[in-house]
Amino acid sequence: MRVTIKDIAKKTGLSVSTVSLVLNHKKHRISEETCRRVMQAAEELHYRPNQMAVGLITKKTRTIGLIVPDVTNMFFAEIAKGAEAQCQKSGYSIILCNTNDNPEKDIDYINVLMDRGVDGILFTMAVNSTTNKASECIKIFNQFEKPAILVDRVLNVNNSDNGFPSVTVDNELGGYLATCHLLELGHRKIGCITGPMGAQSSQQRLFGYIRALQEFNCPFDQTLIKEGDYHTSSGQILFKEFFKQGVTAVFAFNDMMAYGVYCQAKKIGLHIPQDLSIVGFDDLPFSEILETPLTSMKQPAYEIGECAVKKMIEKINNPQLQTKNTVFKPELIVRKSTSQIIKK
Amino acid sequence: MRVTIKDIAKKTGLSVSTVSLVLNHKKHRISEETCRRVMQAAEELHYRPNQMAVGLITKKTRTIGLIVPDVTNMFFAEIAKGAEAQCQKSGYSIILCNTNDNPEKDIDYINVLMDRGVDGILFTMAVNSTTNKASECIKIFNQFEKPAILVDRVLNVNNSDNGFPSVTVDNELGGYLATCHLLELGHRKIGCITGPMGAQSSQQRLFGYIRALQEFNCPFDQTLIKEGDYHTSSGQILFKEFFKQGVTAVFAFNDMMAYGVYCQAKKIGLHIPQDLSIVGFDDLPFSEILETPLTSMKQPAYEIGECAVKKMIEKINNPQLQTKNTVFKPELIVRKSTSQIIKK
Repeated sequence: MRVTIKDIAKKTGLSVSTVSLVLNHKKHRISEETCRRVMQAAEELHYRPNQMAVGLITKKTRTIGLIVPDVTNMFFAEIAKGAEAQCQKSGYSIILCNTNDNPEKDIDYINVLMDRGVDGILFTMAVNSTTNKASECIKIFNQFEKPAILVDRVLNVNNSDNGFPSVTVDNELGGYLATCHLLELGHRKIGCITGPMGAQSSQQRLFGYIRALQEFNCPFDQTLIKEGDYHTSSGQILFKEFFKQGVTAVFAFNDMMAYGVYCQAKKIGLHIPQDLSIVGFDDLPFSEILETPLTSMKQPAYEIGECAVKKMIEKINNPQLQTKNTVFKPELIVRKSTSQIIKK
Repeated sequence: MRVTIKDIAKKTGLSVSTVSLVLNHKKHRISEETCRRVMQAAEELHYRPNQMAVGLITKKTRTIGLIVPDVTNMFFAEIAKGAEAQCQKSGYSIILCNTNDNPEKDIDYINVLMDRGVDGILFTMAVNSTTNKASECIKIFNQFEKPAILVDRVLNVNNSDNGFPSVTVDNELGGYLATCHLLELGHRKIGCITGPMGAQSSQQRLFGYIRALQEFNCPFDQTLIKEGDYHTSSGQILFKEFFKQGVTAVFAFNDMMAYGVYCQAKKIGLHIPQDLSIVGFDDLPFSEILETPLTSMKQPAYEIGECAVKKMIEKINNPQLQTKNTVFKPELIVRKSTSQIIKK
C-alpha cells in the first residue's frame, strides 16, 4: 500500500497536521527534534509524496514532453538521451512521443501532453508539416500557456517574435563546409542528395552547398540536386542517376543515404575514394567502422538535447524570460571516403 | 488560458453542473439537444479535461513508464518505438527513462515513476544488477501495488511466482541456431564474444552455443569464450586474441561487437568470409549494408515493445490476471559473412 501522511503520524505519535507541516517545509513553529522524527519515519516507511496532488496545487508536474519524428534515428535517440540525462539532474521526467514524421500526430501528441499537465514541450515538428499545421500547434501552445522549445527546427511565422526559442545546428555552415572540402580536393561535379526539402535543415544545407560553389566559381547545375528521404534506399536509387551523369563526388545530407551510395557504388564496381568521394551528415557511430570510413559532418546531438532541457527549465521557472536561440556548430570529420580527384 | 467547464457553461448559457454531467458521461436526465450544445461548445473552445484531476479520482493516469539501459542502442530504440505506437493506439503515454545500465538509476527511476503515478512500468533492468538490487526493485513495485512487465529480462527470485511477467527472446535458441550455422559450414574452432555475463540474455546465448557444440560432438574449449561489453571496441580487442588462437569463425553476441571484429580482421588483412566467418546478434539495419553483409540473429524488437504494452494494459485493467511470459523466437538471417570452411 502507498504510505500516506497518516501512516507517518501513526508511527511517530504526532498529529497529521504536524507531519504535513514538516513534510511541506512549513516547519517554523516545530521543534528540530520533531522534524527529525518525522523525516526519519518518512524515510523508514519509504514515503513518497503524491505528485498528482502536488501538481494540482502547484500547477507544475516537473514533466517535460519530447516529440520526435523517429526515435530509431540515432540523431534523435542521442538528443533524447542528452535531454533525459539533463532532466534527471534537474529532477524532471521526460515523456517521449514518436510521430513517424506525421504532422497529424504532432497535434495529437501536443494535446495529449497538455492533458497530462507537462510543464513544457521540446518539439521537433514532422518535416512535411505545412504552415497550416504549424499554426495549429502554436495555437495550442498559446492556449495552454506552456512553453515550447523547438529542437532541430525553426518556425517561420509572420510574427517575428513567436516566443518559441530553438536549439539547432548551423546547417548552412554544415552544407558549406562539406562542399568546400570536396571542392578543395578538386571535385567540380558534386552530386547532392538532399533530405525532404520541406525541412529547413535540408534547405539550409543546400544553401551552404550553393555558397561554397559560388566561392569556388563553380557553376550551379540543378540536375546535380536530387531529393532523398533520409533512408538508405534513396541514396542507393539516386546514385544510379548520378553515376550516369558522371559525378566524381557525392554529398549526402545524412549518413544513412551515404551508406546507400556505398552499396550502389560497390554494385557498379566503383572504388571509394579512388573513383568516387562521399561526404555524409550526422557522423553516426557506424561511419567510423565502415570498410572505408565515411567523411561526415558531426552534429552534437547529445548536447542539443541537454541544452534544450536547460532552456526549458529556465523558461518554466521564469516564463517572462526572453530566451535566445542556440545554434551549435557542426564539425567536419575527415575520413577515408574522400580524396583528391584523379584526372583520367 | 486553459478552458474550463465554466467557460463552456458561459458560452452555452447552461449551468456548470449540467455541463459537468454531460462531459462526465452522466447525461441520462439531460436532453439530447443540450448534450449536443455542450459537446459542440467543448470542441469549439478546444476543451481538454485536466488529467491530473481525473487521475486523483480514478487513481489511473494512463501513463506507463519505460526503463531502458540505453536508448541509443537500436535494439532498445526499436522496443521504445513499438511500445510507444501501441500506447498511442490505446490512449496511453510513455515516460522514457534511460539508466546507462546503472542499477542505482533503476531504483531512482522506479521511485520517480511511482511519484508520477504511472499505472505500471516496463522494465529492462541494468545488466550488472545484483540480486540485492533486484529485490529492492521488487519491494518498491509491491509497496505501490503497481504492475511491472520485464522486457528482455527475467527475474530469478526465490518466489517462483513473483508476479512479474516478462517479454523476451529465446536467447538460448538464438545462441544455438547461430552456432549450428557455423558448425554446419564445417567450423570447429569458433570464438565466442559474449555480452556482460551478469545478463541472463548473455548466459542463455552461451548455453545455446554449448548445446550446439555437443550436438555436433565438438569439444567445448573455454579459451574460446571471451566476455565483451556489447560495444564495438570490445569486439576489436578480443578478436586480436582469437586471431592468435587460430579461430576460423566468430560468434559475437551483438552486431556492434561483430563490427569490431570486421575492423580488426581488416587491419590484419583477413578476408570475410574466406578467412573468417562471422555471425552477429540483433540484425541491426547497418548489418545489411556493410561491404560484406553480416549474418545475424534477428530479434523482433518492435514486436517486443508492442507486446509488453499490450500485456501491461491487460494487467492494469485486470490486476488479478495471471499473465504468462511471452518468448519470441529469434531468426537467423544468413548473409555473406559466413561460408564453408576452406581447408588450407
